[in-house]
Amino acid sequence: MSDGKLITLEGGEGAGKSTAMACIANRLCARGIELVQVREPGGTPAGEAIRALVLDPAHRGLHAQAELLLMFAARAQLVHAVIEPALARGAWVLGDRFTDASFAYQGGGRGLDAGFIAELERRVVARKPDLTLLLDLPVRDGLARARGRGDSDRIETEAEQFFERVRAAYRQRAALEPARWRVVDASQPLDGVLGDLARELDAFVDSVR
Amino acid sequence: MSDGKLITLEGGEGAGKSTAMACIANRLCARGIELVQVREPGGTPAGEAIRALVLDPAHRGLHAQAELLLMFAARAQLVHAVIEPALARGAWVLGDRFTDASFAYQGGGRGLDAGFIAELERRVVARKPDLTLLLDLPVRDGLARARGRGDSDRIETEAEQFFERVRAAYRQRAALEPARWRVVDASQPLDGVLGDLARELDAFVDSVR
Repeated sequence: MSDGKLITLEGGEGAGKSTAMACIANRLCARGIELVQVREPGGTPAGEAIRALVLDPAHRGLHAQAELLLMFAARAQLVHAVIEPALARGAWVLGDRFTDASFAYQGGGRGLDAGFIAELERRVVARKPDLTLLLDLPVRDGLARARGRGDSDRIETEAEQFFERVRAAYRQRAALEPARWRVVDASQPLDGVLGDLARELDAFVDSVR
Repeated sequence: MSDGKLITLEGGEGAGKSTAMACIANRLCARGIELVQVREPGGTPAGEAIRALVLDPAHRGLHAQAELLLMFAARAQLVHAVIEPALARGAWVLGDRFTDASFAYQGGGRGLDAGFIAELERRVVARKPDLTLLLDLPVRDGLARARGRGDSDRIETEAEQFFERVRAAYRQRAALEPARWRVVDASQPLDGVLGDLARELDAFVDSVR
């Protein structure tokens, strides 16, 4: 049996990732694919404990390097305990954020050296997603949606310029690796976004099966 | 004003670090040195939350890389929020374990690549202690003392061979950098251990003042 595929969904605040995750999962299941869904940070008992710590507004003084290392600690556990075993048995894995989010948030957003993040990726993850879907929309539109939902976590309370740097980093990564990335315009009405996602997914599944 | 000095205390389980920490702190205070004491993992609100996570027996399946990254996340916060500001204003810092513990426990004990740990040290810590005191004693003696204290945390429940590798890694590091390390025989009666520590400390203070 061949290894499964790793698909990741990336995007800023209010891009509609939750709805998109459910839609992507349905589409893959309808194609008869065994799917494991994970989210970052989290997806394991230790990872969920790390998620609670990282998002806790009480840790406002958390240093950018500490944040990066916590993200990679959660990711290490997720990779070794969940993602690699699933892929090895032929299941596909759908990730709500993955290593690209560290390049966007801790690299672009917080200004940490991308070379250090790449070194952590090489040492800890040692794998790139087979397909990455980026839900892209103007920062102001996304924040208006996200803040309409109510209480904000520690990262959601950052200033607008922070999220502009996150978006720019995502778009730059997508431009540099076009074979892996598909950028979907998330500012369209929901029907259009889900239609675009379905089309990209179907094309990917057809290309690898 | 010149920068303060960083002194670290290292040693395996049951080596008597707690008593030694108090004795070292007293000795430095008696010399009129402003001292900040820290412990690892911990020493900051985020670091103490990480400590609770790392030592929790519920996280028995924690992968070695996740453990290493959690240790460095706590260390990053401690370095940036506590140690560097203290040293910059001329205070001395006394650390109950520091980066050498990652080389001993996650490197020697768990077999992670020392090159990766050195890269994290370079990127995150960017400083070596000015003096490191190693409380060294046979593993079996140390474990008998530590287990006599009652409940064991996640790391204390490792097998004896694990602690043999930790001890060997500590001794090897001390042998490679004799100018920084002082090895104290912790299998002696307490009086002898504290006497040796006091002598090493006095010699160090005299050499830098």
